[in-house]
Amino acid sequence: MRIARFSIDGNVAFGVVEGDAATDGGPFLDIIKGHPFAEFERSGQRVPLDKVRLLPPVLPNKVIGIGRNYPEHAKELGNEVPDVPVTFFKPSTSVTGPGDPIAYPSFSQEVHHEAELAVVIGRMCREVPRERAHEVVLGYTCANDVTARDVQRREPQWARAKGFDTSCPLGPWVETDVDPGDLAIMCTVNGEQRQLGRTSEMVRSVEDLIVHITEAMTLLPGDVILTGTPAGVGPLNVGDEVAVTIEGIGTLTNKVIKRG
Amino acid sequence: MRIARFSIDGNVAFGVVEGDAATDGGPFLDIIKGHPFAEFERSGQRVPLDKVRLLPPVLPNKVIGIGRNYPEHAKELGNEVPDVPVTFFKPSTSVTGPGDPIAYPSFSQEVHHEAELAVVIGRMCREVPRERAHEVVLGYTCANDVTARDVQRREPQWARAKGFDTSCPLGPWVETDVDPGDLAIMCTVNGEQRQLGRTSEMVRSVEDLIVHITEAMTLLPGDVILTGTPAGVGPLNVGDEVAVTIEGIGTLTNKVIKRG
Repeated sequence: MRIARFSIDGNVAFGVVEGDAATDGGPFLDIIKGHPFAEFERSGQRVPLDKVRLLPPVLPNKVIGIGRNYPEHAKELGNEVPDVPVTFFKPSTSVTGPGDPIAYPSFSQEVHHEAELAVVIGRMCREVPRERAHEVVLGYTCANDVTARDVQRREPQWARAKGFDTSCPLGPWVETDVDPGDLAIMCTVNGEQRQLGRTSEMVRSVEDLIVHITEAMTLLPGDVILTGTPAGVGPLNVGDEVAVTIEGIGTLTNKVIKRG
Repeated sequence: MRIARFSIDGNVAFGVVEGDAATDGGPFLDIIKGHPFAEFERSGQRVPLDKVRLLPPVLPNKVIGIGRNYPEHAKELGNEVPDVPVTFFKPSTSVTGPGDPIAYPSFSQEVHHEAELAVVIGRMCREVPRERAHEVVLGYTCANDVTARDVQRREPQWARAKGFDTSCPLGPWVETDVDPGDLAIMCTVNGEQRQLGRTSEMVRSVEDLIVHITEAMTLLPGDVILTGTPAGVGPLNVGDEVAVTIEGIGTLTNKVIKRG
């Protein structure tokens, strides 16, 4: 099931993406009564997908990023694969939606794309045992862990390099029925392929990361874990259109603009 | 003015701390209509301070920490004062209130106290010029930037070392009328002094930090900046009572318990 969050006529709602052009004139959104973090009913009210503005599929309280989780990417930046996962935060103010702009920050001259599989947490949890990790996942979406690479080199903690406004595009929706173990993940810039990998290259699996993070902290419904990026990261420039595509999930597209 | 957040009979409210035992039977809380992030009226309804449970004085969307902002503290851990402030996040799930326990995490054997002046942001802001930085501050409170020092040494990014549940005690209230430029700041453990400094030792002032952080990211009402800790950090053990006192603000006391 694909669950999108969207605005229509000034209201915000969640809806299940259904149908396609060939069979029933879709895709459309079947609006959910309530929210997707508990049992929910569909309202039966349908809205054409192309008539709404998609929003970030969740509003995370926090986003936890993982560094150097694909060996080829660690290598391309001259880093070893670490003994313990590198964990950092992106704040909720960095989150932006599918189709929304990435605003190039004033304090960087080297902003990079990083295509990532994002895990959306479905329920409050802490100290999750490995065998129950799948129970706390609502689903998966695409993310771009946009990074000011020059700032990341200068500042030992990455709050500014990875936490600036619009540095965390998420979307287009949460796919609840996909196995994250071996999915193709790709990033294109202006239609040219830049990153290509498979989630099976990840050093730590989704389950491992949930165990590692919740050993320290409570996750809340809507929190997001970014699972690291495959090789091929590179610069974004004002005017570029960057797209993250993950097999079985969809494509997250954002345009880079000058910060206003 | 001192603004506290508290619960009474299951309701959460803000109140202004007034009175004292000598003159009028205080201190008590004069309950605010609404919240303190806009013009507000007092209800005139008074509650004795000792009859309520104080809560963290704000619920931050994010907490931004600053490392190595007191030269003597940077030195005691073998670090230089950095050219640019070291900025990191503590998540909202790490925030805990005055009198609440600090739960010793299972993945550390060396948890340290770090007494800090906390800046409470009063309004949404981005790219704040230095001369207007004071306008975005609601006031100041005491913080303890509790840190798993062993984890901090092992893990290059500090999300787990400084982001675990209960690692960010805040309180007891927000003081809106204090000049943060030269205040005594102290930490005691079981009544023994461990840290003592003055905010005038800070390498970067509150204004500098607001400029630096908001160059990258939007701050929201209730967001908190921790301004770094003076020398004297050291271990906390289960059973300890740790108190952070800042001149002109008050005392934040927390007991260390075993994580349940």
